[in-house]
Amino acid sequence: MRNGSGLRGWRAIAAVAAASIGLGGGAALGEGWPTVPEETFAALGVAADAPANVLYEALAARFYDQAKGYGEGQFSALWEPIAFSRYLNPALYEGREELGFQVTAEECVTCHETVTPGWVHAASRSVHADLAALRSLPADDPRAYKVAHLDEVEANLRSMGLLDAGEALAEVGCIDCHMGVGVTEGNHKTDLRLPDAAVCGQCHVRQFAERESERDTQTWPQEQWPAGRPSHALSMLANYETAIWAGMAEREVAEGCTMCHTTQVTCNQCHTRHEFSAAQARRPEMCANCHNGVDHNEFENYMMSRHGLIYQTNGDRWDWEAPLSEAFAAAGYNAPTCQTCHMSVNGEYSHNLVQKVRWGFNPMPSIAENLDHSWFQERKDLWVATCTQCHSPSFATSYLDMLDKGTVQGIGLVQQADAVVKGLYADGLLIGQAANRPAPPAPDADAAGGFFGLFWTAGNNPTAVEHEYAQMWEQELMRHFKGLAHVNPGGFTYSYGWSELIGSLARIRDEDTRLREARALVERVEALEKAGGGN
Amino acid sequence: MRNGSGLRGWRAIAAVAAASIGLGGGAALGEGWPTVPEETFAALGVAADAPANVLYEALAARFYDQAKGYGEGQFSALWEPIAFSRYLNPALYEGREELGFQVTAEECVTCHETVTPGWVHAASRSVHADLAALRSLPADDPRAYKVAHLDEVEANLRSMGLLDAGEALAEVGCIDCHMGVGVTEGNHKTDLRLPDAAVCGQCHVRQFAERESERDTQTWPQEQWPAGRPSHALSMLANYETAIWAGMAEREVAEGCTMCHTTQVTCNQCHTRHEFSAAQARRPEMCANCHNGVDHNEFENYMMSRHGLIYQTNGDRWDWEAPLSEAFAAAGYNAPTCQTCHMSVNGEYSHNLVQKVRWGFNPMPSIAENLDHSWFQERKDLWVATCTQCHSPSFATSYLDMLDKGTVQGIGLVQQADAVVKGLYADGLLIGQAANRPAPPAPDADAAGGFFGLFWTAGNNPTAVEHEYAQMWEQELMRHFKGLAHVNPGGFTYSYGWSELIGSLARIRDEDTRLREARALVERVEALEKAGGGN
Amino acid sequence: MRNGSGLRGWRAIAAVAAASIGLGGGAALGEGWPTVPEETFAALGVAADAPANVLYEALAARFYDQAKGYGEGQFSALWEPIAFSRYLNPALYEGREELGFQVTAEECVTCHETVTPGWVHAASRSVHADLAALRSLPADDPRAYKVAHLDEVEANLRSMGLLDAGEALAEVGCIDCHMGVGVTEGNHKTDLRLPDAAVCGQCHVRQFAERESERDTQTWPQEQWPAGRPSHALSMLANYETAIWAGMAEREVAEGCTMCHTTQVTCNQCHTRHEFSAAQARRPEMCANCHNGVDHNEFENYMMSRHGLIYQTNGDRWDWEAPLSEAFAAAGYNAPTCQTCHMSVNGEYSHNLVQKVRWGFNPMPSIAENLDHSWFQERKDLWVATCTQCHSPSFATSYLDMLDKGTVQGIGLVQQADAVVKGLYADGLLIGQAANRPAPPAPDADAAGGFFGLFWTAGNNPTAVEHEYAQMWEQELMRHFKGLAHVNPGGFTYSYGWSELIGSLARIRDEDTRLREARALVERVEALEKAGGGN
Repeated sequence: MRNGSGLRGWRAIAAVAAASIGLGGGAALGEGWPTVPEETFAALGVAADAPANVLYEALAARFYDQAKGYGEGQFSALWEPIAFSRYLNPALYEGREELGFQVTAEECVTCHETVTPGWVHAASRSVHADLAALRSLPADDPRAYKVAHLDEVEANLRSMGLLDAGEALAEVGCIDCHMGVGVTEGNHKTDLRLPDAAVCGQCHVRQFAERESERDTQTWPQEQWPAGRPSHALSMLANYETAIWAGMAEREVAEGCTMCHTTQVTCNQCHTRHEFSAAQARRPEMCANCHNGVDHNEFENYMMSRHGLIYQTNGDRWDWEAPLSEAFAAAGYNAPTCQTCHMSVNGEYSHNLVQKVRWGFNPMPSIAENLDHSWFQERKDLWVATCTQCHSPSFATSYLDMLDKGTVQGIGLVQQADAVVKGLYADGLLIGQAANRPAPPAPDADAAGGFFGLFWTAGNNPTAVEHEYAQMWEQELMRHFKGLAHVNPGGFTYSYGWSELIGSLARIRDEDTRLREARALVERVEALEKAGGGN
Repeated sequence: MRNGSGLRGWRAIAAVAAASIGLGGGAALGEGWPTVPEETFAALGVAADAPANVLYEALAARFYDQAKGYGEGQFSALWEPIAFSRYLNPALYEGREELGFQVTAEECVTCHETVTPGWVHAASRSVHADLAALRSLPADDPRAYKVAHLDEVEANLRSMGLLDAGEALAEVGCIDCHMGVGVTEGNHKTDLRLPDAAVCGQCHVRQFAERESERDTQTWPQEQWPAGRPSHALSMLANYETAIWAGMAEREVAEGCTMCHTTQVTCNQCHTRHEFSAAQARRPEMCANCHNGVDHNEFENYMMSRHGLIYQTNGDRWDWEAPLSEAFAAAGYNAPTCQTCHMSVNGEYSHNLVQKVRWGFNPMPSIAENLDHSWFQERKDLWVATCTQCHSPSFATSYLDMLDKGTVQGIGLVQQADAVVKGLYADGLLIGQAANRPAPPAPDADAAGGFFGLFWTAGNNPTAVEHEYAQMWEQELMRHFKGLAHVNPGGFTYSYGWSELIGSLARIRDEDTRLREARALVERVEALEKAGGGN
Repeated sequence: MRNGSGLRGWRAIAAVAAASIGLGGGAALGEGWPTVPEETFAALGVAADAPANVLYEALAARFYDQAKGYGEGQFSALWEPIAFSRYLNPALYEGREELGFQVTAEECVTCHETVTPGWVHAASRSVHADLAALRSLPADDPRAYKVAHLDEVEANLRSMGLLDAGEALAEVGCIDCHMGVGVTEGNHKTDLRLPDAAVCGQCHVRQFAERESERDTQTWPQEQWPAGRPSHALSMLANYETAIWAGMAEREVAEGCTMCHTTQVTCNQCHTRHEFSAAQARRPEMCANCHNGVDHNEFENYMMSRHGLIYQTNGDRWDWEAPLSEAFAAAGYNAPTCQTCHMSVNGEYSHNLVQKVRWGFNPMPSIAENLDHSWFQERKDLWVATCTQCHSPSFATSYLDMLDKGTVQGIGLVQQADAVVKGLYADGLLIGQAANRPAPPAPDADAAGGFFGLFWTAGNNPTAVEHEYAQMWEQELMRHFKGLAHVNPGGFTYSYGWSELIGSLARIRDEDTRLREARALVERVEALEKAGGGN
């Protein structure tokens, strides 16, 4: 369903000699792709020093492959997109229905200055708008590192035949992203596209490869999660294939979920339109776009941790324009951000954010029981390396141990509740279980305390005790773990996490006893009725 | 009860020739009042190009009219102000009980520099403190637009006979607001007043007219709300006439409500004392003074929306001194604020913030059923115009549709719960309903799941299930709508809104089944007792 | 168990004539200790003008006295530290187990630049790193007041024989804090220590005395709290002697509590490593390290109060480098911070933050009933003095009255619930009370609605209704009071506090009626069974 516009050649407004850069069409700047994990080359069947065009084509082909997660997923027959859905996923964007006139690159700007001025104002402040200004940055400017990025982009485009050897880019205009790189004019109805990550990736091949590599490094040794998940790179698939999402009738509410799951398909969850500021993407608040709330309150935990509070008090003096590799040195950070910890592996930064994931999005027994497996141990070692930028190894190790054990303790509470709720279900004792328990909509199926019960209800499904239990395993345990992981004491002791789990378990046991006592009393009355006859 | 001090003539410390301004006593700068809606002129019976003094007198007369909302409202016999109440409403301020000495304008400063230095320090940093400095701003200063504001203020005062043609204002001192414009001395006990909005409005006639116009444009076609409400302009009346507010015995707790409802009577909820900074009033946090919390969490939703997160990461680079009309251009905003959306109508900014209100403060069936009425459609079109500053019309329209439908879906859950709770009440099945259900204090009356139950309890009123239902309709549904309206996905899917409503509805149904089963069992026991006799 | 390293003499890298300072070993700069309360001198048995070395030795002796709160408290036999515990309390730190080589002061830096670069980068930005730069600050620099602090530090060290009369400090290096003041080399295993407050206090005697004085001024006239508590100065003892903390099996979760209770033993909860920035410590967010969450949400209340919202909008223009005494004048604050209110007594600032405490951490009847006692009245007067920096005395007094009465109203709701829950317990009616109610772990003992039930559960202890009640008295009432105390209307009306208490009380009464009706029905069935025989 996506707009079929392909590559159209690059618009090189300024042609300057690029001899001093001296790059052919090979690997980016002749260095291979050191920040792209080897798993990705293996998965793509591409050499680790493949030229940019070869790497890009392989990545884009997989990106657009419906068998590998593109499109609407296995439950697509069960739901219909709403009008707004097309803005959340370029795969659903079929082009405009109107305005079928021809426009030039210049007309984009002149017309939209009036029609949607916010776009033009924001874009005019972006690096894209004036690459000559970027090239002229003095070497001591914190943004000077971007000159090498630009060289790399130009090398990428040359490898694709989209830029001549003697050409240099002058700017990236609306049309380059919205109609095709280098396009000078097109039809406003049929040629227009919503840019997706593969559009960004054509210039930014390395970054595209890094982000796509999440599919390849997220390999759970005991299959705790599906291959490549949870990750940003397959987040939209995860959304579409969540049973209750696909099954629920209220598509407008469901699209709220989709609004965060766009990281698979676009880059602008973090690099917001139309400034695409890297400095902005380094701020913890950008992660909060998605990582907040009842079942993954990473942002709240970070902000209330010592780390986050130092950010809140000192962050205005840190140099956000500097690259992450300078964070604790020239940029002056004296506390980590989401980005410094989650984008780094052994001091190397990339757009693969899941290479140190251990507990994932939901602490579960199958992880707890395998923490001594090498996959988990090696990732723990990577965390120690991260923490020891600012903490001693013994400090880091002891805290990571505390994190693991505290998480396991939380799982223990959930398992106790699980046994109670499943016992009530097995015994047919849940309120209304016999008389009034409709099944959730397909593709979901009934289950005691299932995830569906947080978003759907009918009759006595879910019961109150099941809803409580669903909150335990899906929200309170998550908050407990996330509080531990982000070193926010209140997040795993009394405000969230542990104390919440205790309260829920107490209420679930209360209800268990009450329901069983109520059943016993009913049986006594039945016995009386049988004995007494005639009533 | 309010202090009776009237107008006392203007203190013109510096008298300079104002010939270059060339304004007579007519309409502000001869341009009429383009930002004041025509409904207001109609309501006041004043011409749309009335001179400032005429417009002001009509506005002030209405402002002080008890028949139109001034004072303590229809339930005033039921409650007594506490000592602190006088600081929340100048209408309750009867003057000081002590310190009855004469003071001069200069003595305000010299004495309070010692007594309450915070006042003096803050005031000294305000624009009021040095109008000459304002006049000398270079034309390219972002605050230069205020010079025209000052001209307008002087024209207003001339129209009232409070400033001579040849005079210019030099400063606004304590005494001008606290005893009367232009007053040079007065009695510290009998002449002192707490300034209200009509005091500010004497200089700032246009802004006063804009804010007062909320009474006139908030006209619900199916009378979903009382005329002119909800609005800032009648917010204190709404407070005083809320039944449980008037009836509850705990006046100190009740005054917490009043603390936000002062926008009817003063301007300093947004323009805080004594800097009265417009730059500050442009910040979203100023709206959070009131617009936060369980039943109107606009601030939380904004801050966690993409819009708010961009504000949080980029806002320190935006020029807050620039007027809102420059927000997306010279001031560099690349996301909206509360102010840019809610203070604008078709690109024109004013202090009437309710001209695009559609769902108001509580989504209800009577709105849902009338969304195709022209009143709602026209306001939706105004929203599309607002959004299309930065989004395409189809994007804006499709999201506004999603907002409406998602809100209607939330209302559906509340209606299901409503039927259950009212059914239990009708059937006399609520816990303790027969034996121990005191009525709420007058002027309130008993009702199943009434608003009063969020603030008052006695005996078994409210029951747990009613309290849950009151939270649904008054808080969860509001959060659901506000999450949708402020484009915060977690606010209407899983953290707040929908998922909360689902949980509440499930618990309410659980209780419904439990109570009905309990009643059936009691009846079976009664039958056994009757059959068995003698026990 | 703590590291035994004592004082080792001072490292004076630069020796310059200090004749112009002209201080001997006597009291700091010859002025005595005006910011240290007289209670402390009385408690220590030291003269109010004692020399720095005498005062310091007395303070340090008490600080390290296990009979006065040092160490692991009376329940230490019941719990074991985990590996991470040593980083929370230097008293538990027994030295490293490895790396037993000799290191010089210079080697700290050269090695840790590689091993833990964050430490070195942060320390290099601290005032400690370059005292010459501090001395050369121009008099109009907001930090110039620190030159006198440095003079004071040097005088302190001279009084202890750690600095010669002709010497001046050039820097404070890693080794000075981690091995001993003035040490030039040591063993990395046996000499290394985690600095505690007494290490900081050796140079900063006055500040150490101020913080330690909290033990002496927190003297409750009706013994509402143990002597000296609640306070920062005995916070670790309070942690270790909380029964459920000591008794619970999950030590990793328990250590989350400890993470905030470190203020007794170190200074770096507020003065964060390794910049130790005073400017940072003046920010409200630093208090949020601990003062947030379900049972002491001071930070949330402040930030949502008018005070905090002004901070959020204007704070970036305030001069955080200026001392607190300049806050409302030169530093430009136009709203208070945590620090300006809680660190000041009659305009004098110190590190004793509890001299105006009245309601403490848990509003209770024994405080409510004694508010007219002189101890409470005098502290209220001190609050009036604080508020009148920016508010009139009548405003301040009337609000403080509202605060007290509103708090008493909240206590009233808790007392009603208390009677219900204790009545159910006394009557043996709590769910599972007879059959399945294990006691909490020692040293705790069973009680209806005890604090333990927020962190521990087994069988039917606590029941749901008890958990609700524990939340009422320990969390909701606290939030209610803290909302009032920090002038956040939503914090004590509808979002937190009052409305929460109403909901909990309603649910508790609901359950009371339900349980009593259930018992009555059981009795009726029992009577039928007895009458019917044979079943």
